[in-house]
Amino acid sequence: MIIVIKPNTPRPLVDEVMAEVQKLGYDPRAIFGTEQTVVAAIGDERTHHTLESLTALPQVQEVMRVQKRYKMVSRESHPANSVIDVDGVPVGGEKFTLMAGPCSVESEEQLISTAKAVKAAGATILRGGAFKPRTSPYEFQGLGKEGLRLLSLAKKETGLRIITEVLSERHVEEVATHADILQIGARNAQNFQLLIECAKTRKPILLKRGLSERIDEWLLAAEYIMSEGNPNVLLCERGIRTFETYTRNTLDLSAVAIAKKESHLPVIVDPSQGCGRADLVKALCRGAVALGADGLLIEVHPHPAEALSDGQQQVDFEGFKALVNELQPFFTAVGRTI
Amino acid sequence: MIIVIKPNTPRPLVDEVMAEVQKLGYDPRAIFGTEQTVVAAIGDERTHHTLESLTALPQVQEVMRVQKRYKMVSRESHPANSVIDVDGVPVGGEKFTLMAGPCSVESEEQLISTAKAVKAAGATILRGGAFKPRTSPYEFQGLGKEGLRLLSLAKKETGLRIITEVLSERHVEEVATHADILQIGARNAQNFQLLIECAKTRKPILLKRGLSERIDEWLLAAEYIMSEGNPNVLLCERGIRTFETYTRNTLDLSAVAIAKKESHLPVIVDPSQGCGRADLVKALCRGAVALGADGLLIEVHPHPAEALSDGQQQVDFEGFKALVNELQPFFTAVGRTI
Amino acid sequence: MIIVIKPNTPRPLVDEVMAEVQKLGYDPRAIFGTEQTVVAAIGDERTHHTLESLTALPQVQEVMRVQKRYKMVSRESHPANSVIDVDGVPVGGEKFTLMAGPCSVESEEQLISTAKAVKAAGATILRGGAFKPRTSPYEFQGLGKEGLRLLSLAKKETGLRIITEVLSERHVEEVATHADILQIGARNAQNFQLLIECAKTRKPILLKRGLSERIDEWLLAAEYIMSEGNPNVLLCERGIRTFETYTRNTLDLSAVAIAKKESHLPVIVDPSQGCGRADLVKALCRGAVALGADGLLIEVHPHPAEALSDGQQQVDFEGFKALVNELQPFFTAVGRTI
Amino acid sequence: MIIVIKPNTPRPLVDEVMAEVQKLGYDPRAIFGTEQTVVAAIGDERTHHTLESLTALPQVQEVMRVQKRYKMVSRESHPANSVIDVDGVPVGGEKFTLMAGPCSVESEEQLISTAKAVKAAGATILRGGAFKPRTSPYEFQGLGKEGLRLLSLAKKETGLRIITEVLSERHVEEVATHADILQIGARNAQNFQLLIECAKTRKPILLKRGLSERIDEWLLAAEYIMSEGNPNVLLCERGIRTFETYTRNTLDLSAVAIAKKESHLPVIVDPSQGCGRADLVKALCRGAVALGADGLLIEVHPHPAEALSDGQQQVDFEGFKALVNELQPFFTAVGRTI
Repeated sequence: MIIVIKPNTPRPLVDEVMAEVQKLGYDPRAIFGTEQTVVAAIGDERTHHTLESLTALPQVQEVMRVQKRYKMVSRESHPANSVIDVDGVPVGGEKFTLMAGPCSVESEEQLISTAKAVKAAGATILRGGAFKPRTSPYEFQGLGKEGLRLLSLAKKETGLRIITEVLSERHVEEVATHADILQIGARNAQNFQLLIECAKTRKPILLKRGLSERIDEWLLAAEYIMSEGNPNVLLCERGIRTFETYTRNTLDLSAVAIAKKESHLPVIVDPSQGCGRADLVKALCRGAVALGADGLLIEVHPHPAEALSDGQQQVDFEGFKALVNELQPFFTAVGRTI
Repeated sequence: MIIVIKPNTPRPLVDEVMAEVQKLGYDPRAIFGTEQTVVAAIGDERTHHTLESLTALPQVQEVMRVQKRYKMVSRESHPANSVIDVDGVPVGGEKFTLMAGPCSVESEEQLISTAKAVKAAGATILRGGAFKPRTSPYEFQGLGKEGLRLLSLAKKETGLRIITEVLSERHVEEVATHADILQIGARNAQNFQLLIECAKTRKPILLKRGLSERIDEWLLAAEYIMSEGNPNVLLCERGIRTFETYTRNTLDLSAVAIAKKESHLPVIVDPSQGCGRADLVKALCRGAVALGADGLLIEVHPHPAEALSDGQQQVDFEGFKALVNELQPFFTAVGRTI
Repeated sequence: MIIVIKPNTPRPLVDEVMAEVQKLGYDPRAIFGTEQTVVAAIGDERTHHTLESLTALPQVQEVMRVQKRYKMVSRESHPANSVIDVDGVPVGGEKFTLMAGPCSVESEEQLISTAKAVKAAGATILRGGAFKPRTSPYEFQGLGKEGLRLLSLAKKETGLRIITEVLSERHVEEVATHADILQIGARNAQNFQLLIECAKTRKPILLKRGLSERIDEWLLAAEYIMSEGNPNVLLCERGIRTFETYTRNTLDLSAVAIAKKESHLPVIVDPSQGCGRADLVKALCRGAVALGADGLLIEVHPHPAEALSDGQQQVDFEGFKALVNELQPFFTAVGRTI
Repeated sequence: MIIVIKPNTPRPLVDEVMAEVQKLGYDPRAIFGTEQTVVAAIGDERTHHTLESLTALPQVQEVMRVQKRYKMVSRESHPANSVIDVDGVPVGGEKFTLMAGPCSVESEEQLISTAKAVKAAGATILRGGAFKPRTSPYEFQGLGKEGLRLLSLAKKETGLRIITEVLSERHVEEVATHADILQIGARNAQNFQLLIECAKTRKPILLKRGLSERIDEWLLAAEYIMSEGNPNVLLCERGIRTFETYTRNTLDLSAVAIAKKESHLPVIVDPSQGCGRADLVKALCRGAVALGADGLLIEVHPHPAEALSDGQQQVDFEGFKALVNELQPFFTAVGRTI
């Protein structure tokens, strides 16, 4: 780390900083500049005490990290793209992955008809919320275990792999018996206890970026999973919170390129949550493919206007089919197929 | 709710919207304006299906809520200020509450000496993290159960009430046997399963605002606790995430005034997390008092530069004592005492 | 507009609101809901007094607009895409437009060599800053008039059309004699006097979105230009300010799709400013093309590491050539050529 | 500056960076850490070429500044508080300054009655917009020169000093003949040409913080004025743009404390713009006083509900009088008077 000393600090106070750096396990080196002094603290920042606490000293202006904090998720530690095996379906390889289905599982008919429709259009993984995190306690909270049962049924009937969200440490085991991918939602993006619990199942985990999570924090959340011994992580960009109110969130497509550059993990884009408007989903999907995403997570509902949750961002069967057709030239442009 | 129809929409398509509104349980009323038509949907928005899904219809421009979504936490439902009983210490009444202590419990000596120092300066509640949510898995994660034990010991020795964070549904019961207030951190601000689990203990819960949580979302998270039968909620503003990088977070003091206006619940301010810089804590405390906060949650450490977490935002014993002294005229100005 | 009355407001206070609505020129209609009353104010919101001032009345909860505030820039007023004529080069039509060149004009050699290189790679418009808005007064402020002279020279030598930024009302006339497009930078995005002054030249104007400008505000800034009688507006997305620090700004590619949906004006993307990192420019360009942008504005410099401004986001000649090559399949996918 | 080299970079590529650093006028010093190498570039960052362009080199991970970029505005360059003379009224000294008046000047009667009311309540400076920057071209743009004439009249009748906004370089001279303080609005916060033009008048300038301006950028904008030879700058916090929608902006009161710490310039708070809601203005004023602001800029209107601009955030005469009364204990607490 680099400790920046305030201008005009007398030498003994610089020495005090150096002594403290040494005490905390680093090798200090002072560099006396024309205007200010900095102290470089030599040592592995990831295994030592952080030195940010030194800003508690009045003569310290700032402490700056040099090293990135993530290891196992970094591209440097694993230069090739990781391909995650989802019960036989590879994600992150040459094939582009379509995950689609309703926001919430509402009924057997709704789910099975949607599963068949998205499969026919090219999806290989079925999404559907059984446990729903809702902003208000008075909103529909999902079918719970019955929803899980229906997801298993849909897998049996269509062969689609299943992704569904897990909200509680107490549900992890049960969700894992029905799902092929455990989804961590944006609100739980830094619920580390849940991440660790999910990691232990060894199932693939789709980790959504938090509403205002910096990219390094997102990667560090993935590091929690990997450092628990589970390498099967899918990163998912789903929109960040900004000042813009036209859309529900601002889908940060640049994060796709950054995540692919910094990490070897597959990156999935959720354009439905990302914008909260079905009329923009198509365009955002094109962008996601072009920027190098490995898959899409799209909300599809037989009759969006009557959906029990987030109808405004779900497309209908025809819409999904048309969407996949329109994406074909972009799959070609990036040299991938579905 | 108000459904705004796009300009130049033919009448049959307006009728279609009205039929859908009726189907979803509301009484629709169309108002034909000079430029656009709106449909008012009459019915209690909090108990009915949301109509936001209607934006899935191509002729709908926008759906706007009329009612606020929170009930039990609202000032309208309970015009007087709520006073929460923390094992005999009232919070939210005439007395201003000082909660103080180390970011993390590190050792018996560190905790007990801090407890004595903050008590001597006027604090009635001791804070201290036993389970720490850290951005990186490689950072100090807290002493866990040993930390809880030390907190209980500190209570025995000083009589201070205890507040500590709970990170996992699985720890709730144990934390509740040691703590007088369960703290929900910013990262778990919308971890509804954890909120529900904590609510069941009937213990007071201090609910921090999420990093990018809108005030209505924060109040709805509190509504999760109250609707579970636990009225003992303390709201805590601890800084939001903005573009500013001078401070770790931007303490939103205006949120204090808004929360006091919208809700009857006590509001606590955490200036340490709020700015992440000990040199600003004093000024922010003055602002919090002036804006009507009911208490402060302040990080105090015997030697901040060597703290195992967040040393940069912790004040030392002398600093805390001086801080409380400087706040006296502001307590006087708001007509309160500690 | 819709005026939402607070719950439990007695009828006379509702009548007071209605009287005020009428006084301000609208026709008021009250709708009495189960929980709350709303007053619909009928009249053209764009030509009447705003009713937002009514929230000054204690019984008013909220005032909500129904109509969009922009007219001439809206897709509704002009369903076909506008094609802007830039001294014979059409922008916004079937051909995709590449604008490229250095951040700042630094010397004749730097500019002419860059102009030739970007032309050879497919650019039709040369960018180059003569007047530079710099955060600090101690940074390089551009060559000024000498920069304009060099840009004219570059046009003469290569035939490329010229785009350059205008910072001052006093420079508008002079810049307009050298430039084919007047560029309004993000910091002046709502400098309405400058917009009006530029509009009067009738030259095409590239209007960058402000750092934290909502899309409707951006379109309203364009409306300032169009309502001044100049229809030649190019919208330019160049990144917004968010909490993310990995990149300088967060390029909001979803804004491209939204701007194309809401408006008939061409949309240009500036990925260089958008991310501030040359290593991400390529990926962002692919995304911009896929999302429907009509052109790109890319910073190119013979030796970025020594550039007098923003070297970190400029690509070199080889990099630009490679970039255009890599974009070809995406031009094909969207059915366009350069 | 500190240049961080990527891990595992071979020595010759480190040397290349050092050569480039030297070429750009700094003295390079390499520090070889356990994991990464950094190069410290010794030299005055404020007078040399920035080294950020070095991130264009593939072996460079990051370039970090050491020095702050502002000089004349910094507390270090002028440890005592600056007191600005506003035609005989000192701002920034022991007396707290109240600036109040209508958002827009609408008529002689409106202005004069407001001037008398705010003077009676304790204001010493009258605010009033003659030229109004409005988001939409169809909104009331102010009375212009007639507004200036009325402000001069109000000064003659009441003796209040005058503050009014200047929007155009072309108006600077005329505004300066009527106003005692030139106000730069948030939208022009980085309109450097306007700042320079205003600076030349030598009149006091109130510089509002931009909607998403970082504090160092705000101080650098003030540096533009001071480096032009005009030391009479008042900093004004007026709310920043965040994700929160309850208020129009989020008033950043922590910025008051930071600006007072970093700079010697007086800091004024505009709570009216800051929240856009008259019902919160009172609480925010208390906070501003407590945090160390030197003055307040408050919108007052005889009949807010009918104001031609921003009625929702203006208080009436009674409201203003009550507000000043309620602030008295807080003036006492900070040891100031009005």
